[in-house]
Parts: sequence; C-alpha cells; structure tokens
Amino acid sequence: MCNDLFPGLGCARTGDPAHWSWTICNLCLSTLGTVPSIQSPCMYDQENFQGKRLEFTSACQNIMECGVNNIRSVKVECGAWAGYEHSSFCGQQFVLERGEYPHWESWSGSNAYHIERMMSFRPICSANHKESKMVLFEKENFMGRQWEINDDYPSLQAMGWGNNEIGSMQIQSGSWVCYQFPGYRGYQYIMECDRHGGEYKHYREWGSHAQSFQVQSLRRIQQ
Amino acid sequence: MCNDLFPGLGCARTGDPAHWSWTICNLCLSTLGTVPSIQSPCMYDQENFQGKRLEFTSACQNIMECGVNNIRSVKVECGAWAGYEHSSFCGQQFVLERGEYPHWESWSGSNAYHIERMMSFRPICSANHKESKMVLFEKENFMGRQWEINDDYPSLQAMGWGNNEIGSMQIQSGSWVCYQFPGYRGYQYIMECDRHGGEYKHYREWGSHAQSFQVQSLRRIQQ
Repeated sequence: MCNDLFPGLGCARTGDPAHWSWTICNLCLSTLGTVPSIQSPCMYDQENFQGKRLEFTSACQNIMECGVNNIRSVKVECGAWAGYEHSSFCGQQFVLERGEYPHWESWSGSNAYHIERMMSFRPICSANHKESKMVLFEKENFMGRQWEINDDYPSLQAMGWGNNEIGSMQIQSGSWVCYQFPGYRGYQYIMECDRHGGEYKHYREWGSHAQSFQVQSLRRIQQ
Repeated sequence: MCNDLFPGLGCARTGDPAHWSWTICNLCLSTLGTVPSIQSPCMYDQENFQGKRLEFTSACQNIMECGVNNIRSVKVECGAWAGYEHSSFCGQQFVLERGEYPHWESWSGSNAYHIERMMSFRPICSANHKESKMVLFEKENFMGRQWEINDDYPSLQAMGWGNNEIGSMQIQSGSWVCYQFPGYRGYQYIMECDRHGGEYKHYREWGSHAQSFQVQSLRRIQQ
C-alpha cells in the first residue's frame, strides 16, 4: 500500500494474474491532484513495456509497495508526471510528458551517474504550456538582476542571461523544468506554481539531488 | 590539417606550447558558413575544460588532425554547432548551443550506447529561434497527414500528433532538432533549411545513426 505519506491512497490488483496489473485508487484527489484520464501512466517492471504492468491515476510514493522492485519502462497517455530516483519523491527528478519511454535512458537525461531507478512519482497538476510565467533572479533569496520569462530557453546564455547559474526563481503560473546543461540536458529540476508557494529561493529547494546553482536551459512543461 | 573534405580549411597552432591551442582558419566561409565571433567554440581534450584547448571558427571533419584524440569538454561562446560521434560528420549528432559542456554526458542526451566520442563538428548556420517553420508528414516521401509548426514541442503526442513516429519533414526556415523520446531525450536529429534543400523524406536522410522513424519531441535550435 502506497499510503504511508498519503493515508487515503490505496492499491488494487486487477486483470489477468499472468500479467499482474495494479490500479492505484484515487482516494486523495484533493491533496495530490489528478489527471484527466484514469489510464495514465502505465508503468512496467521490464524494459520495452514488458513484465508486470501498473496503472496509476495519482501519486505513488514507493513502487515496491505495489509489488515491483523497479520501473523500467513507462507509457504516459495524458498529463505530466514527475518521477523520482528514490521513494518518497527524493533523489533525481524526471519529467514525464505524454509519450513512450522504453528504458531508463529515455527519461533520465544523461546525468553523471546511472543508478537506473525510478521508485516514486506524482502528477504535475499545474503544467500549462500556454500560460506559464516565471521570474529568474541572479542571486539566492530573490536578489540581484531579475528576468521575467514565459517561453522555452534551450540556452539561457544565448538569450542574454549572463552566466551559467540562477540564484532563485519565482513560478507565477504553470510548471517548469530547469536543466543543468544547455539543450535540456543533465539534472532536471521541476518547479511548480502550486508547490513551495511557487518560490525556490536557493538550490537546496530545487530537489534533494541539487548540488549547485547551475542551470543553463529551462522550459515549460507540457500537460 | 582538417582539409580532406574542405580543401580551403586549415589549422594554425597558437599560444603557449605548454597549453597547445589551435585555431582553425576560416578560409572556406562560403561553403561551410561562419558564426559571428571567432571565439566559438572552444574544445578541450580533457573533461572540465582541462588539457589541450582548441579554438574553432568553422567546421572540422576530424579532430585527430588537429592534434587531439577526442573532445571531452566544450564551451560555446556564440552560435549553434552540430557535433558528431565520428569523423566526416557521421554517427550520433549532438546539438551544441551557447553554454558550457563539462563532459560527454552533458551534450550526448542519454542514448542507448555511450561511446563517448565527438570527432567532428560544424556550425549550424540557419538556426533562427524566432523565425523557424517546418512541416511534419505522417508518411515518408511527404505523404499522409501533415502539420505545419513554428514552436517547440516537448511531447508531439500531447499536442495532437497521433503516434510516436514522423514519416518525413520539410524545413521551411530555421534549424530544428528532433528527438527520439519526449522531453528532448534520446537520439538527436538536426534538420536545417539550407541542407538537403530542407527536405528529409525518409529516416535514412536524418543521419547515419537513424534506425527508425521514431520522433516524440522536437524544437527550434537557438543561434
């Protein structure tokens, strides 16, 4: 049961026992948020959409409590999701938009270490590609030069940002993903208007995997 | 000398011999194209911008002819560049926009194999973030359903494209990079209005590394 952190959340096993299929019942919509379809996402414990198949409609803080040891492929039918390297939404973050991810490399984004685990995930409820706005600040705690943006930036430096770091960020609408390197590569940091009050005043608030202020590209997340 | 393919192109060694530095002289601008500054890009034969340093202003078809065995870190000061796994602009493609790439993983994009080589590169002259337009076709040879786009798409399926493949593409302006997986991950395919007449009618024309029609995200390249 994925209910340590979210007591309303339960798991139900369905389908042909030969192809174990689980559905996470959506009992805590108000705290976790939902996505429009109950068919998203489907997770598999083997690569290329093989093995045990799990269907989810809301967050799961530990996939081992749903009968699998790891997630090795994913199909997202609708909505945007945040995957995490560790249980309880910790470690490296992986943004998952609609599409097919046949193996770990297809969602990981070429980071410096390859632990090949995705142990928890949750919907990104505020993703809104057309109505996204954020303010970048040169220094932590919303200090220094600032820049309001509402578009994608594969190279922040090419668009006029002075260096390879961002000190802090205020997310005014939508959800964003920031990347360590240009061209949407390296560590992913998911930023949402409806979490942390939309305020990320130091890299320590970007995620448990963040080790520096380095951000060289960022973009809106697609619902 | 990097001049087998482009006879006008030469190399000149400059700087302190203790830190070998080479400049590729720009003698064939009309065929290769140029970028606004002569300072871009800088390539290093060790990670984290260490070791021998090479400065380029135009294409290089084999970095071994410039005195190094491999490129292990890159700084791009301006312009957009295409890097290639093999010499003579073959193998995996890596789009390089302005910014800092301290190791192979920072530009490779999490592909299924990690050969860790970048042996040739060239400028992407037609990159134009604001004025980019292309037409996607469902089938090869510009057949089937078509869709004209001028924006970035982290998930083509979320934006209404029916499957995880594109049959063919016509680049009308600017330069684009297509990706195997959603969220700009996996194999990169660089598409330009001024190469192939902007026409890419089969995946075999996307690059020597292309093995299928699978494309799940695409975006404009930033000059």
